[in-house]
Amino acid sequence: MHKYKLKIAYDGTHYHGWQIQPNGISIQSTIEDNLAILLKMESLRLIAAGRTDAGVHAKGQVAHFETALPVDCYKLLAGLNGRLPHDIRILQIEEAAIDFHAQYSALGKIYHYHLWLERIIDPFVRLYRYRPLEKLDLNLLSDASKLFLNTKDFTTFANSAHQGSASKNPIRTISRIDIVMQEGGARLEFEGDGFLYKMVRNIVGTLLEVASGYRPITDIDKLFAACDRRVAGKAVPPQGLFLMQVHYPIAEKQG
Amino acid sequence: MHKYKLKIAYDGTHYHGWQIQPNGISIQSTIEDNLAILLKMESLRLIAAGRTDAGVHAKGQVAHFETALPVDCYKLLAGLNGRLPHDIRILQIEEAAIDFHAQYSALGKIYHYHLWLERIIDPFVRLYRYRPLEKLDLNLLSDASKLFLNTKDFTTFANSAHQGSASKNPIRTISRIDIVMQEGGARLEFEGDGFLYKMVRNIVGTLLEVASGYRPITDIDKLFAACDRRVAGKAVPPQGLFLMQVHYPIAEKQG
Repeated sequence: MHKYKLKIAYDGTHYHGWQIQPNGISIQSTIEDNLAILLKMESLRLIAAGRTDAGVHAKGQVAHFETALPVDCYKLLAGLNGRLPHDIRILQIEEAAIDFHAQYSALGKIYHYHLWLERIIDPFVRLYRYRPLEKLDLNLLSDASKLFLNTKDFTTFANSAHQGSASKNPIRTISRIDIVMQEGGARLEFEGDGFLYKMVRNIVGTLLEVASGYRPITDIDKLFAACDRRVAGKAVPPQGLFLMQVHYPIAEKQG
Repeated sequence: MHKYKLKIAYDGTHYHGWQIQPNGISIQSTIEDNLAILLKMESLRLIAAGRTDAGVHAKGQVAHFETALPVDCYKLLAGLNGRLPHDIRILQIEEAAIDFHAQYSALGKIYHYHLWLERIIDPFVRLYRYRPLEKLDLNLLSDASKLFLNTKDFTTFANSAHQGSASKNPIRTISRIDIVMQEGGARLEFEGDGFLYKMVRNIVGTLLEVASGYRPITDIDKLFAACDRRVAGKAVPPQGLFLMQVHYPIAEKQG
């Protein structure tokens, strides 16, 4: 048995998310189908670190699959990119330890959420930014973001999990939220040990309600205490969200 | 009579170019139709500085139109962007002198052509870069680009002009060609008093043939001397090309 680890970038605009869906093309099925053809396998399952939603993008998604026979990683990388649509690119393929698991071995993840804050959106980033309608107070945004740091029960900021989702534990640790100014606006960088379903988009939604003056900053502690998804802000749309990086223990590679 | 000048950005991916076409949606018709509705005019003609081809992008296209009655530029800007698809954005509308003409008043233009030079293209710029298959010698690219500077007869590097194109004079002046390294590759910046039909893409095509070793650099003077489109390199594809800026005399604005 051999295990292979893939690093993947994709523009999520035209997909119904990572996970295989009954009505719509998923990133998972698009890669699985082409992998199975190249490796002449009847069925093959690709397990991702994070099952991104419809419209969400990735620059550093990680996934793994198993094969009975060893695979030439370099050839497979070229072959797979040759077959895949150009909005999905395999950045790297390498053999992993047999106990490596893209989801369960992950120690942490980095997500970025991109906001466009000028009046007229650049047409070249229209699919990769969210433009809030209200004017934002960026100092307030920064102050509010600090209230989401550290280990907390994020029940209020998690939608009901995916069907078949592994973990229902709502206790998560966000170690870093940075607000970085960039052309046309700002991005929010989230780093944590794991993120519940729609957690980043729900947190950003609540942050924007505070930064636009719609909700007082003192609400945030009350929202956490309520442990109820219905009290928090509306999730922001998927197109601003990027899965940037997945962290693993250092020595997962096999000879 | 009033004249208005528009600055326009567009992602050309989904359009059959600037100019109205019998089979396909043009940027010109998309803007004209929405302008006519907003201004309650039966017909309205929008004249652009440069008629970009299918798939070519713009960050600083300029166009003008005439009206009998004065227009509130600020309201029109908001109304027009509210109606237009998000891959076309009007950046600015202002009243211009009555003798202003987007095409004939232009003193010069800047075009950029973007090359992707790494093995795996970033899926987020796949529609805005061209990836040459051959490995390029960037020093040779730079040396060869200098042979296109100054005032020359560019007949060899111009396709037959657009139907109804105004100028057939093949003498043009390129004042600047810079090769600027950027993430994933390089862009070629062209500045000149005017560019013939497909001239930038034909020049880049020939430059890539030299930089990849397919054609000696000494060919370039011979190509100019031949005054024959058929002898030069193949045009590079449209998706790497951006119309960045159009220069006009300074005092074209009306009180």
